[in-house]
Amino acid sequence: MSGLQIWQKNELPKVESQIEGFIHTHTANEQLKESMLYSINAGGKRIRPLLVLATVEAFGQTATQQTYQIAAALEMVHTYSLIHDDLPAMDNDDLRRGKATNHIVFGDALAILAGDALLTGAFELVAETELAADKKNQLLQLLAKSAGANGMVAGQVYDIQSEQKSLTFTELAALHQKKTGALIRFAVVSGGVLTDQDEQVLSKLDDFATHLGLAFQIRDDLLDELATTEQMGKKTKKDDAAGKNTYPVLLGMEKAKSALCAELTQARNILKSLSFNDFNPTLLLEMIKLFELERGNQ
Amino acid sequence: MSGLQIWQKNELPKVESQIEGFIHTHTANEQLKESMLYSINAGGKRIRPLLVLATVEAFGQTATQQTYQIAAALEMVHTYSLIHDDLPAMDNDDLRRGKATNHIVFGDALAILAGDALLTGAFELVAETELAADKKNQLLQLLAKSAGANGMVAGQVYDIQSEQKSLTFTELAALHQKKTGALIRFAVVSGGVLTDQDEQVLSKLDDFATHLGLAFQIRDDLLDELATTEQMGKKTKKDDAAGKNTYPVLLGMEKAKSALCAELTQARNILKSLSFNDFNPTLLLEMIKLFELERGNQ
Repeated sequence: MSGLQIWQKNELPKVESQIEGFIHTHTANEQLKESMLYSINAGGKRIRPLLVLATVEAFGQTATQQTYQIAAALEMVHTYSLIHDDLPAMDNDDLRRGKATNHIVFGDALAILAGDALLTGAFELVAETELAADKKNQLLQLLAKSAGANGMVAGQVYDIQSEQKSLTFTELAALHQKKTGALIRFAVVSGGVLTDQDEQVLSKLDDFATHLGLAFQIRDDLLDELATTEQMGKKTKKDDAAGKNTYPVLLGMEKAKSALCAELTQARNILKSLSFNDFNPTLLLEMIKLFELERGNQ
Repeated sequence: MSGLQIWQKNELPKVESQIEGFIHTHTANEQLKESMLYSINAGGKRIRPLLVLATVEAFGQTATQQTYQIAAALEMVHTYSLIHDDLPAMDNDDLRRGKATNHIVFGDALAILAGDALLTGAFELVAETELAADKKNQLLQLLAKSAGANGMVAGQVYDIQSEQKSLTFTELAALHQKKTGALIRFAVVSGGVLTDQDEQVLSKLDDFATHLGLAFQIRDDLLDELATTEQMGKKTKKDDAAGKNTYPVLLGMEKAKSALCAELTQARNILKSLSFNDFNPTLLLEMIKLFELERGNQ
């Protein structure tokens, strides 16, 4: 196992136990609890919480319970968004990561409510965290901004509106900056907030995460184009069929690969520009490799 | 006009302009904005924000911008819950307050997302409010707790689960304590938090609001039984048809009326027990009258 893999294997259970502990102690209804936990434990890669932790470590600090709680809240927001996106009224997906989606197992009503509860719970978890009140507020505000009508939700609306309509590269990038980019930016910037970085550093972290977010989406589109249903554990070529805008459709495969490479290079360069005392981006650089196409679907 | 009506007419626009201002400045997409504003302006009675303001005034304080913002956030949470509850996957209501429901006008996908955006926006609005950070956190935590998997969302799940199943009075009351009671309790208790009341007073406010919340639901059930579709602006006798548990079905009309009266008497008695210096519950007592059956559908 690589250093990153060992670290992940050690750290992720701490994030997951925060999520599970929260749901167990904050949910009045057994079926609702089951539905929430089903999607939390449906086998995601936990890219977002790992970015929180890797950023905190890059600034020479050790992750604390509060770090795990912020990472947990972020993963709850991400999970809610997947549950709602998969609904028949939205993307109508039956499978995600090789498992039946929430509404297939629990019905549409409970899936909507499990999503609502995970979103609400994420804010409750942050509000309960033992951090200085002003830092907690800053994180809460940033999380809401990233997830809301100027962030992820707006991205999802753009996505729906752009079906059967051709977007330019710039428009597609703007869509993904909101739809997937906003939470990835929160992941990295929250690591900076948790370690008390100044505005200038937070702004660089935001730039870094912006490139990472775009790379994430370009890679996802490329893998979707390349992989088969079995390998991905979800329907593929579906984006094509639904007339969705993807980077390979827009740019062709080769230019999409180059665009991915360019985003990752820019991300690396920003990390290099942050090389002051105590800054050790080893884990972040390792994580960038996860966004390379050659790593395949892991 | 009564004193309450004059006060309402003066104060409600201040809450509404906070909501509208927030949505206008925090929403990236025009159609999403339109969908959110449609449901916000669909003609609700604004009971919850009025309770926040009336409680603040009862403690001898004047409502400030921060009060209006907390009241606005609460109404946003309430509105999100109505949009999601009306969805075909949930209660499948085409009409609310005499107007087409959100998903009828904007489609299911945008209705789900407008709800998500209003919920997320409510937390963003509280986080942005210029209050002391610890008070803001207390309100945020309380709002999330009231709205989430131990509060309103759990109540909605119980409601779905109890269809075609007979509940006892205690079970029905427990359901409504979560489904509608939780936000009404937040309304009153947040007024106490905003005016720096101690734990003992907050606990009494919580009791007061608990009785008010039950009265609210019993009255709603009674009106549904009595009124016609035209008068109510939504389908009635529908609860009956769907095999839903209501107080009139469970207790009969007369006992349900007595139960409503008993809840309001207990609410009044708690207000009397709070009669220390500077406490002036005039507006709250006027608001209790809104929960009486004789006031009809206003």
